[in-house]
Amino acid sequence: MFLKYKFVALFEVKLKEQKPLIIVTNDDGVEAKGLRELVDAVKPFGNIVVVAPADAQSGMSHAITVKFPLRIKKVKEEDHVTFFKCYGTPVDCVKLAFNQLLERKPDLLVSGINHGSNSSTSVFYSGTIGAALEGCINDVPSIGFSLLSLEPDADFSAAKIIARRIISQVMENDLPGSVCLNVNIPKGLLEEIRGIKVCRQNKGFWREEFDKRTDPMGRNYYWLTGYYYNCEPEAEDTDEWALRNNYVAVVPLHTDLTAYKMIEHLRQWKF
Amino acid sequence: MFLKYKFVALFEVKLKEQKPLIIVTNDDGVEAKGLRELVDAVKPFGNIVVVAPADAQSGMSHAITVKFPLRIKKVKEEDHVTFFKCYGTPVDCVKLAFNQLLERKPDLLVSGINHGSNSSTSVFYSGTIGAALEGCINDVPSIGFSLLSLEPDADFSAAKIIARRIISQVMENDLPGSVCLNVNIPKGLLEEIRGIKVCRQNKGFWREEFDKRTDPMGRNYYWLTGYYYNCEPEAEDTDEWALRNNYVAVVPLHTDLTAYKMIEHLRQWKF
Repeated sequence: MFLKYKFVALFEVKLKEQKPLIIVTNDDGVEAKGLRELVDAVKPFGNIVVVAPADAQSGMSHAITVKFPLRIKKVKEEDHVTFFKCYGTPVDCVKLAFNQLLERKPDLLVSGINHGSNSSTSVFYSGTIGAALEGCINDVPSIGFSLLSLEPDADFSAAKIIARRIISQVMENDLPGSVCLNVNIPKGLLEEIRGIKVCRQNKGFWREEFDKRTDPMGRNYYWLTGYYYNCEPEAEDTDEWALRNNYVAVVPLHTDLTAYKMIEHLRQWKF
Repeated sequence: MFLKYKFVALFEVKLKEQKPLIIVTNDDGVEAKGLRELVDAVKPFGNIVVVAPADAQSGMSHAITVKFPLRIKKVKEEDHVTFFKCYGTPVDCVKLAFNQLLERKPDLLVSGINHGSNSSTSVFYSGTIGAALEGCINDVPSIGFSLLSLEPDADFSAAKIIARRIISQVMENDLPGSVCLNVNIPKGLLEEIRGIKVCRQNKGFWREEFDKRTDPMGRNYYWLTGYYYNCEPEAEDTDEWALRNNYVAVVPLHTDLTAYKMIEHLRQWKF
């Protein structure tokens, strides 16, 4: 369903009206290299407005800020792209963009390119995917991009070409607003990547191994660490398999968490 | 799949071994009335360990703390129930409980009782549901409970009876670890509630209307406000419909976000 928004333009965002309107956000913050690379990748496709967190928001999932007010600041205007930073979460950025910054509903939302994987169960913890899912909830075609490298100065040259290909397919075909794409890209050179695979989300979880330390006052504290446990390493239709085999993994995600198969079963219970 | 955890007992949690082990958490914080009521509701079913956020974590979704270390503190032991508070998010609480506090995998996780609804799309923003989904990711049968009242001193007497009934059914029947239940309870007296309905997640979203203010330094800030927009008010199989008609809404949730219907469609695209 396409719903009209009450858009209130608070900032003068100069747009050439005929071109698609594209929102760019991320969770690594407005200064991240991955964001600049994504802006560069998406430039040929329309008018771009960047609304990204002021600082890193990794692991912020779909969190919204309710205890404190939000602030937003215009950072710069560069090559017809306006950059805003928001002192909040990635989802706060999307909400502010949709409801306060733009005069009309955007045609596309892209989030990333994240420094690090967001495959499998990581969709739940990731701020990058949180932002894409928020686009999806608001019926805007959305894509989350992640590169399998945590390096702040990672090489995004292959990722940028792949992002452009996927964006062009999303613009050309009909991606329903109720579905977003989770795109994970192996690191390395373009010629090392074996192709783009449409997959399902792998079943797995993070086995935490908290790093316990003692502060100078003698009190314990814990750093969250751990490693990913793959519950189905043999399944060849998953994002984990694709990435392990050097394919780009594209997983269509939706926002209906209902476990439909359980409904009939639960109706037999004696509540 | 049932997976063995590496449990490290850091605190002495006295358990009568033969009884089920139940974890209680929430997102309103360890002092919330709803948490105390849930502890009371779940007491007959096993040995209880409470691990709740030190303060309110509403809207924290599935967020994890990666920028700062976590701290955990034993608050009290009351009627054989041990209370811990964690300076982190609801999901941090669950991870710490599973990996640092308990000697064995718990048999059940209950989260809540939340002060306020967590129906429909709110599953994405809610810390209460974030904690239940984290239980689910770790293959522990989990239930999130919410009462449709934001009052800190809300009347939980009906909710407590309903929670007990649902927990008893979950303990008696076989709720797969890969599915958790999202239970929303209308406010009011028990006799006003028309029954317990198994539903699907309603399609809807929050229409934000940011409350823009100016601080004493002349700078703008925004409070996130808004109202829920129901995209399918006529559908009678949704949680929203059930709640509007004074039923308890039980929605089975899972953690696979894959939009399976889109996979074949996407495979036709020219990536």
